[in-house]
Amino acid sequence: MTRTMRALVKTRPGPGMTLEKVPVPTVGPDDVLIRVEHAGVCGTDLHIWEWDSWASNRLKPPVVIGHEFAGVIEEMGRDAAAAGLLAVGDSVTAEGHIVCGHCLQCRLGDAHLCRRTQIIGVDRDGAFADYIAMPASNVMKLDGIPSEIGAIMDPMGNAVHTVLEGISVPGARVLVLGCGPIGCFAVGVARAAGASLVMASDFNPRRRDLAKAMGAHVTFNPAEEDVVAKVRDLTTGDGADLVCEMSGHPSGHAQAFAAARLGGRINMLGTPSKHTDVDFARDVIFKGLTLYGVTGRRMYQTWDEMQRFLRAGTLDPRPVITHRFPLEGIEQAIGVIKSGEAGKVILDVK
Amino acid sequence: MTRTMRALVKTRPGPGMTLEKVPVPTVGPDDVLIRVEHAGVCGTDLHIWEWDSWASNRLKPPVVIGHEFAGVIEEMGRDAAAAGLLAVGDSVTAEGHIVCGHCLQCRLGDAHLCRRTQIIGVDRDGAFADYIAMPASNVMKLDGIPSEIGAIMDPMGNAVHTVLEGISVPGARVLVLGCGPIGCFAVGVARAAGASLVMASDFNPRRRDLAKAMGAHVTFNPAEEDVVAKVRDLTTGDGADLVCEMSGHPSGHAQAFAAARLGGRINMLGTPSKHTDVDFARDVIFKGLTLYGVTGRRMYQTWDEMQRFLRAGTLDPRPVITHRFPLEGIEQAIGVIKSGEAGKVILDVK
Amino acid sequence: MTRTMRALVKTRPGPGMTLEKVPVPTVGPDDVLIRVEHAGVCGTDLHIWEWDSWASNRLKPPVVIGHEFAGVIEEMGRDAAAAGLLAVGDSVTAEGHIVCGHCLQCRLGDAHLCRRTQIIGVDRDGAFADYIAMPASNVMKLDGIPSEIGAIMDPMGNAVHTVLEGISVPGARVLVLGCGPIGCFAVGVARAAGASLVMASDFNPRRRDLAKAMGAHVTFNPAEEDVVAKVRDLTTGDGADLVCEMSGHPSGHAQAFAAARLGGRINMLGTPSKHTDVDFARDVIFKGLTLYGVTGRRMYQTWDEMQRFLRAGTLDPRPVITHRFPLEGIEQAIGVIKSGEAGKVILDVK
Amino acid sequence: MTRTMRALVKTRPGPGMTLEKVPVPTVGPDDVLIRVEHAGVCGTDLHIWEWDSWASNRLKPPVVIGHEFAGVIEEMGRDAAAAGLLAVGDSVTAEGHIVCGHCLQCRLGDAHLCRRTQIIGVDRDGAFADYIAMPASNVMKLDGIPSEIGAIMDPMGNAVHTVLEGISVPGARVLVLGCGPIGCFAVGVARAAGASLVMASDFNPRRRDLAKAMGAHVTFNPAEEDVVAKVRDLTTGDGADLVCEMSGHPSGHAQAFAAARLGGRINMLGTPSKHTDVDFARDVIFKGLTLYGVTGRRMYQTWDEMQRFLRAGTLDPRPVITHRFPLEGIEQAIGVIKSGEAGKVILDVK
Repeated sequence: MTRTMRALVKTRPGPGMTLEKVPVPTVGPDDVLIRVEHAGVCGTDLHIWEWDSWASNRLKPPVVIGHEFAGVIEEMGRDAAAAGLLAVGDSVTAEGHIVCGHCLQCRLGDAHLCRRTQIIGVDRDGAFADYIAMPASNVMKLDGIPSEIGAIMDPMGNAVHTVLEGISVPGARVLVLGCGPIGCFAVGVARAAGASLVMASDFNPRRRDLAKAMGAHVTFNPAEEDVVAKVRDLTTGDGADLVCEMSGHPSGHAQAFAAARLGGRINMLGTPSKHTDVDFARDVIFKGLTLYGVTGRRMYQTWDEMQRFLRAGTLDPRPVITHRFPLEGIEQAIGVIKSGEAGKVILDVK
Repeated sequence: MTRTMRALVKTRPGPGMTLEKVPVPTVGPDDVLIRVEHAGVCGTDLHIWEWDSWASNRLKPPVVIGHEFAGVIEEMGRDAAAAGLLAVGDSVTAEGHIVCGHCLQCRLGDAHLCRRTQIIGVDRDGAFADYIAMPASNVMKLDGIPSEIGAIMDPMGNAVHTVLEGISVPGARVLVLGCGPIGCFAVGVARAAGASLVMASDFNPRRRDLAKAMGAHVTFNPAEEDVVAKVRDLTTGDGADLVCEMSGHPSGHAQAFAAARLGGRINMLGTPSKHTDVDFARDVIFKGLTLYGVTGRRMYQTWDEMQRFLRAGTLDPRPVITHRFPLEGIEQAIGVIKSGEAGKVILDVK
Repeated sequence: MTRTMRALVKTRPGPGMTLEKVPVPTVGPDDVLIRVEHAGVCGTDLHIWEWDSWASNRLKPPVVIGHEFAGVIEEMGRDAAAAGLLAVGDSVTAEGHIVCGHCLQCRLGDAHLCRRTQIIGVDRDGAFADYIAMPASNVMKLDGIPSEIGAIMDPMGNAVHTVLEGISVPGARVLVLGCGPIGCFAVGVARAAGASLVMASDFNPRRRDLAKAMGAHVTFNPAEEDVVAKVRDLTTGDGADLVCEMSGHPSGHAQAFAAARLGGRINMLGTPSKHTDVDFARDVIFKGLTLYGVTGRRMYQTWDEMQRFLRAGTLDPRPVITHRFPLEGIEQAIGVIKSGEAGKVILDVK
Repeated sequence: MTRTMRALVKTRPGPGMTLEKVPVPTVGPDDVLIRVEHAGVCGTDLHIWEWDSWASNRLKPPVVIGHEFAGVIEEMGRDAAAAGLLAVGDSVTAEGHIVCGHCLQCRLGDAHLCRRTQIIGVDRDGAFADYIAMPASNVMKLDGIPSEIGAIMDPMGNAVHTVLEGISVPGARVLVLGCGPIGCFAVGVARAAGASLVMASDFNPRRRDLAKAMGAHVTFNPAEEDVVAKVRDLTTGDGADLVCEMSGHPSGHAQAFAAARLGGRINMLGTPSKHTDVDFARDVIFKGLTLYGVTGRRMYQTWDEMQRFLRAGTLDPRPVITHRFPLEGIEQAIGVIKSGEAGKVILDVK
């Protein structure tokens, strides 16, 4: 007899998602079955709920939604068990990008850019459910990291990737543009990595408060302050060594170009819905800037770095968690994200 | 009695430059006096000749023009002589960026981005003259490199910087967009550095021929061919590992973004006069691209790399030299550059 | 009925190996079955043949020997087939280190240092046989690379790893100490990667000839020449930018330390059987040297780099192949390796 | 009339140094004259005092001793003044390695390895005096860093170089072998740079206490504890990501090799007086280790990094300063260093 479980499912094209009874996933030889304890709700889930053009082009309903989660292993596939690296009862989280291992990007250590990536909760069944089956190689033990933190290591990993890529952060002066949850995590990561000055900017006062709670030395309100002038003042006229562009707005891009120092770096994570008008001569070439586009998490260096910060206690993301709901509360969860009043929103699944 | 010499001088604001008799420069304690043998004429000299808005904002006439040159040391300042590293009679060239040594960029090994850079032939007297005085620390011995090659190591250095920055070139598939002299040098540098495939694109058939002469495996005419599709065909669908953007046109930027592989790199040297409309989500973030703006030459790693290629004979820029004129022929030299028919143009000064 | 095949097997502890009839390996869901066409015989196989202390501690007979090979896929496991990346009839080679994917090293992109590595022909059945089963993720298509070259990509990969690690090779002056097969491959790789000077040293005149055939600009006989003095002469007194230590002898280490330039690099592959007496103050600290120990091949950047050189034709290892034998000729193959007269020795299995 | 000043001078070959009246140094056009306020006494000064074989081979008396100092600019050479980057009254310290700027190492950004380095207090007059003349390019403004900290930025810079070279320190597990002053500084630098675990080892309990005061999470007494076993216990069996070898003893080297993780790194600063017996196969090659020899400070990235830590307050070296003496107290200063009871010893010169 098939076991069933609760799951938030996009059952057909169109807005919303519904709580359904569906079969517990079966477990292949290389997979593990995880009982979900907590799951994070992401801006991507809002796009899926609203069924925007990206979502309607990408998703093939029915699909269980949710890609950020942590839980406990309840069953192991034969080969996964034989490997002896994970065990029933282990508290775990997982990388949600399931990659091919064969394409050029996978072969070069850029698996986060795999051409055949399948994302859980988007391209295959996800984690807003009592159970999820995952390939064992995507699963990581929490080993003491609390489950509600484990549930948000996916977006925190985006922040780790954004802050640490291509620059020696110790001593650096870092500007974070946009203080949504990942921007706030980036503030905390920059502090944990020894940045000497962390500046953060957002229009929303609640988000600036969260950035401060995560360790920002100073926050800016771009509606009232000249962010670029402030950054110059605080850096003896140099500008920022690293700009983390998390806003995804052309105005953020303009600030990033202007606030970065000669020879500095801009790591871009915020995904814009509009195009940006760029003066490459003035803003990139004569400044000797480097720009880098951040997708996902380095598999798995980013996870290792993050685990070290979390276990050492130098990074604690909990101030960013502002709301928690049961699985049934998905509509409220989506609502608070849409309102802009939320930091990170978590579903208590267990 | 003051010795005099010939020099091409921008004597007053406005187009053109004139051949004048001016005093031979005096030599400070840390300087050397170089008798110029050959000098290269650059697109920048065309801007200066035409007195465009950049030139009229930057130059303070009277100033001797010219920043690419080679020659023979004729006199040494006291401290330069005491250092014992250069001697009268040495055949030399020089880095034309004279930097402060104290700013953050100089201190971090990014002297090519020094905030107080003085460029010869722009901010101080240059090399279209019988003599030039240079700080000894900017001077490099040719040690067997012919003087007419020495005279174009400044723009060749731009190409070396563009090709080698931030990527392991051996085996790489490189696309060069724009086959002016520096683009053609980039083709030769990519070959010398072990690229497995060098592709080059230009509207101008003579420039495509020069790129082929420098070793391009294949050239494209963007007026008739779909450059991006061709690049994909030649790279088993991957795209280029490195794009050297030498065109400075928004259409070049668009091709660069589309032709770079996932996780690839675009090093931009061509300085655009227009802004570019960029879809950062599609073109940079989801592709995991890195962009880098190239200014000048790394001081002095770029020079060392270039000297090695030239002395080993793995790079020979001479096919790119299409025209030579005496100092008096500056008007013709500027004319052939403006016509787009020239590769590299050299003044025989001696 | 079980299909059988020929295989060279270490049937019990002690010297030698014997040609046996054994069952064709079964293929798990993630595996492919490869019909072996060519296999390379390695110094490691000599240790196994002779049953030295390393071999007797590591191998658990019975085991099929051989870890360098190429062949054609004849059967695919279910999941390997479903992935659609390989197909029956593909000409392939494979990385012989089968790694866990979970340990810190695997997670950090250092899978060549995986703590749970299983090596084919050592820890599990190998390739001196008509068939071998391999995990699909270890298998790479040859796509035009001849099978006898595919059969030696394992040791060639060691050379690629040794030459390219941690240094920008274009223009570099490289010294290869020890011209066994991997040393000779290193010579060819350094040339393909744009080194401006490749120097190679070996006592054996036949090996020096092979190094020359692979592109060494100059070779040294340490019995008659002062290698360090020669290197200095050829590098204007600087020393080598990179020393590839392939000899595994304390005298090679001493030469490496002395011949490397200030700030230079020594990549060590030759595995010594003796200890070396090192003056760290003089040889490493005051010289600002970097040393790196080479194990295996980077998985899979090394393979990608090697494939590019081979497909572009900038690297051709065939001059190093001096002997070919059928599977039955293993004793002669071991004999020519032992004699020191061989370059690379290949078994024609098909 | 020549102004005179106090200076500690090695007047002739042999042990000791004497306080003399000597002329205030003259200032060349590129120099500044600095009134010394504080100076650090280094192990090197002990070697000079004792006139060991290194000292007697290197020093040419008479020479003023001392290479670690800070003070105030009192006079500027003409060209140094014209540059406008420093001014009379500036509180400053200086890099004590005066380099040629022309050799390969200087050209490649490795000026700390310049072949023509002149060290103050060793090869030319030093800082144990009321005044010292320094090239302006070696001088850095303290801008709020206290003078007694400025006086020890030279050895602190050695620690910064040792900790930050070639590794991303945020999250790393670092082992410091040897807790002399530079080892203790390294502990503080590793903490400032975001290391997740800093372990330090020394036989001397006072030094272990200093390491703890600088932020070591744990200290080991190698006389009573199995350092390697302890490191493994604290790193889930992995070993240390980075070992800073500051002891300069063969036993430290052995511990470094054994305690570093697979793929880890050993940065060596302690200069041994003996040779070390190394098993390169087991300790370097099969472990995939990287070793790096630390000389001086990167000019000037190391200084920039250090200034950032000091100004941000994330590094405070003052717990390591255990003794202060006037210039006349040099014999006591040398005595406490020799006794092993001292941390960092400072001379109050003003």
